[in-house]
This record gives sequence, C-alpha cells and structure tokens, in this order.
Amino acid sequence: MNIPKTSYPRIVIIGGGFAGIALAKKLSKQEVQVVLLDKHNYHTFQPLLYQVSTGGLEPDSIAYPIRKILKDFPNFYFRLAHVNAVDTDKNKVRTDIGNLKFDYLVVATGSKTNYFGNAEIEKHSMAMKTVPQSLNLRSLILENFEEALLTSDLHERNALMNFVIVGGGPTGVELAGALAEIKKGILPRDYPDLDTRSAQIHIVQSSDCILEGMSAQASSKAEDFLEKLGVQIWKNVRVTNYNGKTVTTNTDLTFEAETLVWAAGVKGATIHGLDAEDFITNGNRIMVNAFNQVKGFEHIFAIGDVASLITEEFPHGLPMMAQPAIQQGQQLGDNILRLIENKPLQAFKYKDKGSMATIGRNKAVVDMKNFRFQGVFAWFVWMFVHLFFLIGFRNRMVVFINWVYNYVRFDREARLIIRPFKKKHNITNHQ
Amino acid sequence: MNIPKTSYPRIVIIGGGFAGIALAKKLSKQEVQVVLLDKHNYHTFQPLLYQVSTGGLEPDSIAYPIRKILKDFPNFYFRLAHVNAVDTDKNKVRTDIGNLKFDYLVVATGSKTNYFGNAEIEKHSMAMKTVPQSLNLRSLILENFEEALLTSDLHERNALMNFVIVGGGPTGVELAGALAEIKKGILPRDYPDLDTRSAQIHIVQSSDCILEGMSAQASSKAEDFLEKLGVQIWKNVRVTNYNGKTVTTNTDLTFEAETLVWAAGVKGATIHGLDAEDFITNGNRIMVNAFNQVKGFEHIFAIGDVASLITEEFPHGLPMMAQPAIQQGQQLGDNILRLIENKPLQAFKYKDKGSMATIGRNKAVVDMKNFRFQGVFAWFVWMFVHLFFLIGFRNRMVVFINWVYNYVRFDREARLIIRPFKKKHNITNHQ
Repeated sequence: MNIPKTSYPRIVIIGGGFAGIALAKKLSKQEVQVVLLDKHNYHTFQPLLYQVSTGGLEPDSIAYPIRKILKDFPNFYFRLAHVNAVDTDKNKVRTDIGNLKFDYLVVATGSKTNYFGNAEIEKHSMAMKTVPQSLNLRSLILENFEEALLTSDLHERNALMNFVIVGGGPTGVELAGALAEIKKGILPRDYPDLDTRSAQIHIVQSSDCILEGMSAQASSKAEDFLEKLGVQIWKNVRVTNYNGKTVTTNTDLTFEAETLVWAAGVKGATIHGLDAEDFITNGNRIMVNAFNQVKGFEHIFAIGDVASLITEEFPHGLPMMAQPAIQQGQQLGDNILRLIENKPLQAFKYKDKGSMATIGRNKAVVDMKNFRFQGVFAWFVWMFVHLFFLIGFRNRMVVFINWVYNYVRFDREARLIIRPFKKKHNITNHQ
Repeated sequence: MNIPKTSYPRIVIIGGGFAGIALAKKLSKQEVQVVLLDKHNYHTFQPLLYQVSTGGLEPDSIAYPIRKILKDFPNFYFRLAHVNAVDTDKNKVRTDIGNLKFDYLVVATGSKTNYFGNAEIEKHSMAMKTVPQSLNLRSLILENFEEALLTSDLHERNALMNFVIVGGGPTGVELAGALAEIKKGILPRDYPDLDTRSAQIHIVQSSDCILEGMSAQASSKAEDFLEKLGVQIWKNVRVTNYNGKTVTTNTDLTFEAETLVWAAGVKGATIHGLDAEDFITNGNRIMVNAFNQVKGFEHIFAIGDVASLITEEFPHGLPMMAQPAIQQGQQLGDNILRLIENKPLQAFKYKDKGSMATIGRNKAVVDMKNFRFQGVFAWFVWMFVHLFFLIGFRNRMVVFINWVYNYVRFDREARLIIRPFKKKHNITNHQ
C-alpha cells in the first residue's frame, strides 16, 4: 500500500465506526501518521438504521464520508480496504489492496450479527447492521405488501404481512415500534384494497424481559408502549429455526412469516492473526487490559465492540454500544501519545451516560444514573441526543426536518424500493 | 390480476413518469377506475438524477412513492408489475403478475437509453435514466478515485480519473458541470495524497454545438461556462466504440477512461403488441394523432416520451421532455372523459414553457419564448422551477436544504459508496 514513510510513528486503525473515528479525531493534530482502513468509505450511525429500514430516513443522512470527517487533518490517510489478517510478528496488516507496516495497531472492527451457528437462520433472516442490509429490509417489507395484494390465499397473505423480530434489545424494540406505526398510519392509506389489520408484529425474546440492559422500570414501560401499539411480545421463548416460511421455537409456538429480523445478538468482528483462542473471550471479543492493549502486546490495541474490557461494574466486558466505543477511542488517543513519549498510561474509566430506546411517537424510555423517565419528554431527549451525536451539520438538518415532517404528517415518505431485494436474488443481505 | 370489477370504465396506465402521473391526477375524482402499473413503486424526478450521481442529493429526495401521490383517490389501484405485452384484440395487458382487461389503455412507458445498436458500448458504459443507474455511477466515480490512489502507473491512474461524457444535451452538460465542480472543490480536500489536477472531464458531441435543442445564445454561453470550469468539449466527433478502457471516435481522437457516461440519445420504450412497424416512427416512438390515439384505435393512447405527436412546429414529434409529457397527460385526462361521454375530443396543443440547463454554481442558461438569459439569475430560476415541479413537500424541503448547504459550503456530502459497483459484478447498470 503506497502510504509515504515519514519520521512520525504510524498508527493504523482498522474500522471507521464510533471507536475508530473518535480515536482518529483525537490524533488529528499530533505528530503521528494515521492510516484508517475501512471496507466502506463512510461512517454509519448505526442507532438510526432501523429508521432507514422503515422509510423514515434516507440512508445518506445517517452515513457520512470518512474522508470528509478527517479532511483537514495533516498526515492522515484513508484507504478503502478489506483487512484479511494481522501479522503480529512482522507488524503488518494484510489487505486486499496490499500490506502495510504499522508502529501501532488499533483494531476497531466492531461487531457482527451472531446467529449462534444456525446457518439456516443466517440464510433466511434479515439483519440490520449496515446501510445496505437496512435498505434490503426496507425493500423486503414493501415488496411483501405489494405481493400480499396479489394473492387470494389467506394463509400466504398473512405470512407476507407477519413480521417476526427475534431479540428484544433496543434494535428489536425500536424496529417493532416503527413497524407498528406504519401498520397503523400508513398501510391503510397506501393499501386501501388490502386488509392490513391482519398484519402482525412479533417480538420473540429468550429471557423474561425486553430491554434487558436497562432498568426494570424502562423495560416494563417499553412493554406497555409496544402492547398499546399492537406489538405481540413473546417472552421466555427462543427461536430454534426458520426456513424462510415457518419460524419454530423451543415451545409449541410457531409463526408463518415471510420476514424474520434477527436482532438476537452480536459478536465481536475479530480478525485473523488476533483470533487465536488465548486472545478471545466471551462474545467473540478480543480481551484487552485497562489500557485497551491486546494480551502480550504493548503496541496493539482493540477498542469498541470488538474489545472486551473488564471493569468492576462490567465483569463480562463493557456493553457493546456507542458510548464505551467513543470513550475508549478518545482515551486511547491520549494513551498512544503517552506511550510515544514514554509516559505512564492511564487506565480507561467508563462514564456511563445512561441508555435509552424509542418505541414510537412520543414514546421513549431513558435511564440515567439517578434519574429514569419515560414518555414524551424521554422521546424529546432521545431525539436531541441522537441529533447531537450524528456527524455533520447537513445530516442533522435533514434528519431533523424529516422527523418534524414525519411527526406532523404521521408519515414516513422514504418508502421506496430502490433496489428490489426479493426479485433480484443477486443482491444478498450479507454485505 | 385481482382488481375488482366495477360499473366504471377501467383505464389502465402503464408507467408512473411525468405523463402517467399527470393523467392519473386528472382522473382522480372522476367516475372511472384507474389502474396504474409501474416496475418501480416510485416516481422518479429524472432532471435531478445527475445530482444523485455526483453526491449532491440523496436518491430518496428525488423519488416519490406512487401510492402516496394517489392515496386519496377513490377507485385507484397501483400494481408493481412488469408489463410484457398488450393484446389489442382482447383488450388485455399481460404482466408478470397476471393479465388485466382494460376499457382504455394509456401507454406512458417513457424512453430508454439508445445505444444505436452498439452492444459493446452498452455493456461498458454507464447510463443515468433511473435511480439505481445513477447510484451505480456515483459508486463508480468514487471507487475510481479510491483506486487511483493505489496505483503508481501514471497511465492507469489518469484513466481512472478521466470522465468521458458522450452527448452534449442537458444531461451531459449538467453532469459535466457537476463533475468539474467536484474536481475543483472536493477532490483536493478529499484526496490530498492524489494529484487530482490531472482528472479530466470530456464532452463528446457529434454535432457542431452543445444543447442543440436550445438557442444559439444558450449553447455558446453554456460552452463558455463549461470551458471556464475546465471541461473539454469535442464537437463534430462521434464515439464509435468503448471497450471499458479506450474510447475510440470517428476521428484520430481517442481517450483512455475507466468511465464513459452515455448520454447520447434516448428512444421510446415501446411495448410488445404495439411495436409493429406500422405503429412506430422515428426515435422508436409510437405514432399518435392529435388526441394521442394510437393508429387504428379509439381507446388506446400513448403519451409522453414514448409517443410521437407531430405538430407544425415539431414535424419529428414533440421533444422528449417533462413538459410535453405533463401537458399530454393532463389533456388526455380530459379527452378520455369526453370520449366516455361521447363528446368530441380536443386536439393537443403544446405550450412551450421554455427550456433550461444548469452548468454549475451561479451558472445556468434559460430560453423562454421571448426572453433568453444566462448566469446567476438563470441559475436561481432553474432552481426555483425544479423545486416547484418536484413532488412532495418533504422532498422540496430536503432538496432546498441540500442546495443551500452545498452552495454555502462548496460541498456535496452524499459521496457514499453504499452499493459498490465495480467490486460487485452482480450488480449491473442495466436496471
């Protein structure tokens, strides 16, 4: 890879998610060379992907060109590349566009969908971790309604209008809420010649509550909100298989559904060369110490979802969310500079800023350290926080306008099948 | 196709472009049943596709769900369908989702890219007639710059940064202007480690002027504007072939370019059953009389780009543009109602509202009947007219904000490779 050699130490960052971008920004005006590698040329604001899937937002408003984020940084290089492996002996990364030597390496590869080894579910279900996946889900939802119009077979028509969401975490809850609002507000107007009342939205959750990472209060209120919207929640049920038509579970319960969204778990997106057993801990994450160093290396780090950093409060590693990723990226920036200057490193301390989820119009739940609230105010807080963390002034403006419009008009206008998913089998969901 | 039978006459419209939508709106509150068929579930505002390709606009802002346009119309049915043929004996259309009887049929299928029989150009070039095609072009442009960074072969690098646009009509001119602005304002910031000065933008025009349909004044001013932006215009040159690398012409001139955009012509998108020689005239368009009736039929019509309606001023048929299409759609609405009521039909009269093209920031040319102007004011008029004709309040707002932002910041933020074009050969340009 033709990155010029300079007298500055070279820091290679793999991944332009929350962690990688926070780190790169922190290093922007320092005497280091930064090379950021990502397989996309944009940063994805994952918390809003579900709104892309449900036609509330355009994909371009929640993605941001990585080159633009970092355009004014001297000694900064971006390369669009798939990283195949890390060679820890030779301090090199191997990619599809060539090899690159590093002085410091930061793995910020994030997480990917965890199907727990079930290949059939992986094949037939939809995930929502990337922009193309979210657009595929949008296409599929709309294609299913168009198809439902064409059949006189009641059984088939219902299957086309049934949505099974596996996993009651924030992603599953937010998607279910959005689908319920579409069912209520948009389908009857868009499909007057279809009885859309029989459309069903199910959440299947393996444990005994939804939003497990949040407070009992938030969880039960979210459940209330969802039930009022007509979402059916099945707790203590585990989906065991899905053949593209029938969802089976570990109980008598089965569903006939043409759409199954798998939001039941993620795992670290580890990388060859750092995926040997002794590097990896629960959730397929790379074990790191309090300085985000990978076991046995002073100059190789992991941050964000892919890193498992154990604290007293989080004995199984920090939660796989934006906040820990951003904070680790920022902290590591300082620590790498300390390392270069031979100063002692500072241990990472996670500041829990709370968590939140939105269920729909005027309905959200927010947990802060000493303060929990739900409803309209929580919903405003949710919107404000998401706008604040979105990158780019234009994106914020456009998202804000879309939200105001959607709120005032009870609408979601981006219901476009731009790339058909079902009819074009050459586009798969696994990108 | 399960469209209910009513006592109202059934009007089937094939195509949801400018013509089809204008007609459907006109028929909205009448005692007729309207069935609109389109292979997309959205209407495309084609005049702004070039801004999607060049990262200035999101695709969702210039597309609009057809169901939403027509949601409050009683007796209106939309079906997402590919029409295979028209059976004029049995008054039926044959589609991939079944057959449908009609009382009145309106063909509003628009136009498609005309490669004049050159299969190699068709295979290797990019078109810009649909949203997916425009997104493919966007991906390709950005992928080429990422690739240019990787090669030390100067010849190859230049080919990756050369853009050849065949055809100096509004599409070619507007795209060239946008690319020139990207070269000037965005590339040096986005690719500081690439010498982007060697990027070249060429327009190849077979006749002796660009913007042929407009006044000599507009044409020469547009040429000035483009040349100031660094676009090279080759007049009286015809592209004869393109193998994906080398563009050959009928002169000594050749170009090494990885991107060739074919904007050299369109032809009517005719339909089986109405494509026999005696229906078709120049430009592969369906001959119609002054009432838009297809030869030999009282109840079968063609409107918009696919129809060739001869007037005194336009002996080769009306221009293939939005205005004639909209006006024909509106007029035909009235005429079909007259036909149903056994009243005499009124001949179509084209009101030429003028034409315009934008070259870039503060640069546009406008021809009106008795008034021609170019420059800043023309540019504002161009923007105002395009916002006015865009469908949907949200789309107008979002496009307006993007334009203000792009203007103030000299930027185009949507430079995202959401669906890679080059690397994924399973996505082709011909959708």
